[in-house]
Amino acid sequence: MIQAIGYATKSAHAALKPYEFTRPDPKANEVQIKITHCGICHSDVHQARNEWNNTLYPCMPGHEIIGRVEKTGSAVKKFKTGDIVGVGCMVDSCKECPSCKEGLEQYCESEKGFLATYNGNQRMPSPENHTYGGYSNLIVVREDFVLTIPQNLDPAAAGPILCAGVTTYSPLRHWGVKSGHKVGIIGLGGLGHMAVKLAKAMGAEVSVITTSKEKREDALALGAKEVILSDDNADMKKHKSSFDFILSTIPQPHDVNPYAELLKRDGVITIVGCIAPLTKPLDMSKLLMDRRSLGTSLIGGIKETQEVLDFCSKHNIQPNTRLVSVDKINEAFDEIDAGKIDFRYVIDMATLAEKHEDKSILGKIGITSH
Amino acid sequence: MIQAIGYATKSAHAALKPYEFTRPDPKANEVQIKITHCGICHSDVHQARNEWNNTLYPCMPGHEIIGRVEKTGSAVKKFKTGDIVGVGCMVDSCKECPSCKEGLEQYCESEKGFLATYNGNQRMPSPENHTYGGYSNLIVVREDFVLTIPQNLDPAAAGPILCAGVTTYSPLRHWGVKSGHKVGIIGLGGLGHMAVKLAKAMGAEVSVITTSKEKREDALALGAKEVILSDDNADMKKHKSSFDFILSTIPQPHDVNPYAELLKRDGVITIVGCIAPLTKPLDMSKLLMDRRSLGTSLIGGIKETQEVLDFCSKHNIQPNTRLVSVDKINEAFDEIDAGKIDFRYVIDMATLAEKHEDKSILGKIGITSH
Repeated sequence: MIQAIGYATKSAHAALKPYEFTRPDPKANEVQIKITHCGICHSDVHQARNEWNNTLYPCMPGHEIIGRVEKTGSAVKKFKTGDIVGVGCMVDSCKECPSCKEGLEQYCESEKGFLATYNGNQRMPSPENHTYGGYSNLIVVREDFVLTIPQNLDPAAAGPILCAGVTTYSPLRHWGVKSGHKVGIIGLGGLGHMAVKLAKAMGAEVSVITTSKEKREDALALGAKEVILSDDNADMKKHKSSFDFILSTIPQPHDVNPYAELLKRDGVITIVGCIAPLTKPLDMSKLLMDRRSLGTSLIGGIKETQEVLDFCSKHNIQPNTRLVSVDKINEAFDEIDAGKIDFRYVIDMATLAEKHEDKSILGKIGITSH
Repeated sequence: MIQAIGYATKSAHAALKPYEFTRPDPKANEVQIKITHCGICHSDVHQARNEWNNTLYPCMPGHEIIGRVEKTGSAVKKFKTGDIVGVGCMVDSCKECPSCKEGLEQYCESEKGFLATYNGNQRMPSPENHTYGGYSNLIVVREDFVLTIPQNLDPAAAGPILCAGVTTYSPLRHWGVKSGHKVGIIGLGGLGHMAVKLAKAMGAEVSVITTSKEKREDALALGAKEVILSDDNADMKKHKSSFDFILSTIPQPHDVNPYAELLKRDGVITIVGCIAPLTKPLDMSKLLMDRRSLGTSLIGGIKETQEVLDFCSKHNIQPNTRLVSVDKINEAFDEIDAGKIDFRYVIDMATLAEKHEDKSILGKIGITSH
């Protein structure tokens, strides 16, 4: 067992605080990673605050993990000590079902499904029998779920590609977005800003659909051709029946009907940001008349995650990030929850060592109590 | 102008009664058809009773029309006097927009859209400036919207192919249903019973999903492999994640969530029967976890309508029908509305002449007053 430290919360209404725990020693097919950076995803906020009613406490979020390989199991082939690597939303799956075999581990058909990087249950040894994520100094992960970070990507900024990136890349690819398509991105947060960059790099003409007037300049700077204000009826009406594909990154239940009308015939609106019931029943009259569809998509598989990393490398796409020290996680959560930011906060994990290094049982990164 | 007679209603709560009106003489590109049979579609009930809040009165329904060509305009090429022909849900469209050019006139992108066979507005001369459907002795239709009825189809039974048939055929084809697929058909009425026959002929293994226990035997006789009772939780649970494609023919607002769970990964549930808002908000948790989609589809184009007629001819598929005389239309409406029947009523239009032929200004089929 390896002594580890991270930031975790013990209940839905408590702040995240330093928390000591253990990681298992790496098995033959596992890699031990010293975490250098971890993005803060909106899901982290939902999960820590038990907004999906399934949180296992203590909850240590983080699934946009970048780090350096410290140790490899005897059977590990793809990685060696010192490699810059990433870990996204999953750390294990059955690898035997049809979905896993197709590289779509996020839809693993085994009874337990995939093992989430945090809040995943029952398969990894931890005192509380659930997984702890990347808000920590180290992690031990099965080789098959570790990603190679291309050399030209900045390790301090690449983390969000592992969740926000692949979560938007996967549906853009699945629904065949390409040059000449008109694509609408609803919401300009962590996912939305990556979606704009990715869709643009795929050759699409991208519009951002948002309620936040103040995000207009940022949207255009990201590569959007225009910004549609979703609470402006005239603006919405002007864009009726004009999009081939719309991606909703809104992280809360919402009404999809007004957006559906923006689709052309055979257009698809795909929802990736919300896993709760939408706020209003679907209005068939807004869909049927143009054979519009509503799709859904859940994160992305490991193969696709490597693909989006390589795509970002090739197209020089980098998430817009700001580094934050561990003791500012709770403030960052509040800002994300308020929908104020159109970039990703990334925790600089070096600050975990700095803040908690004295009187430590863990050497440079430990603490004595919490 | 041609004197005509049909059955129409003057308000949402009135019964259908004999009604005299005029049809225009056929123009160069039009065909005058003596109607022999007309299917009674659930839409006819919705429309006559103003359940979609857009009915123009007097309302003369009927868009599953079979008849014989009586006269052709000078430019008509495809038809000659005596041909057995059909007219479905549409009698005109712009024929110039991208959708029309693709043979998808039901999604006509002109401002007015396609012209519906009845309750269509503003383009055909009629005293009240809207179209009258097939519950009548004759109709005059643009050649491009007239279908050829293959010789081996019974004219008394073929009518429902023109609406119930193409409305289910179109999505089954669009979503690529084929041999080896597991297909669920929700609802076993006019549309549902055709969907079972068509999907089975396409090679799929078909299940009927219904609340009506008493329809089990009929479903199996139509070719379904099994019947799932949608109000039996255990039965529904047993079939979780097992279908490639599900078609909902329920003609009323309903809750789609329980059915969505029956889909495999990447499965699609398509709604064709309801044009109002569904009863419950879509639950993303039931869709996202398997990248399930919700699709919609509206009737079918003219090219597809001919295709489904030819498909039925080739596969010896005939709608299950019962002939009804014109004076029983109102009773038939009540039965359809109650969801009791899993076949199509077809009006035997010869009975229109029989009932109303004496003291007539219209010769054999006229009446003097109404």
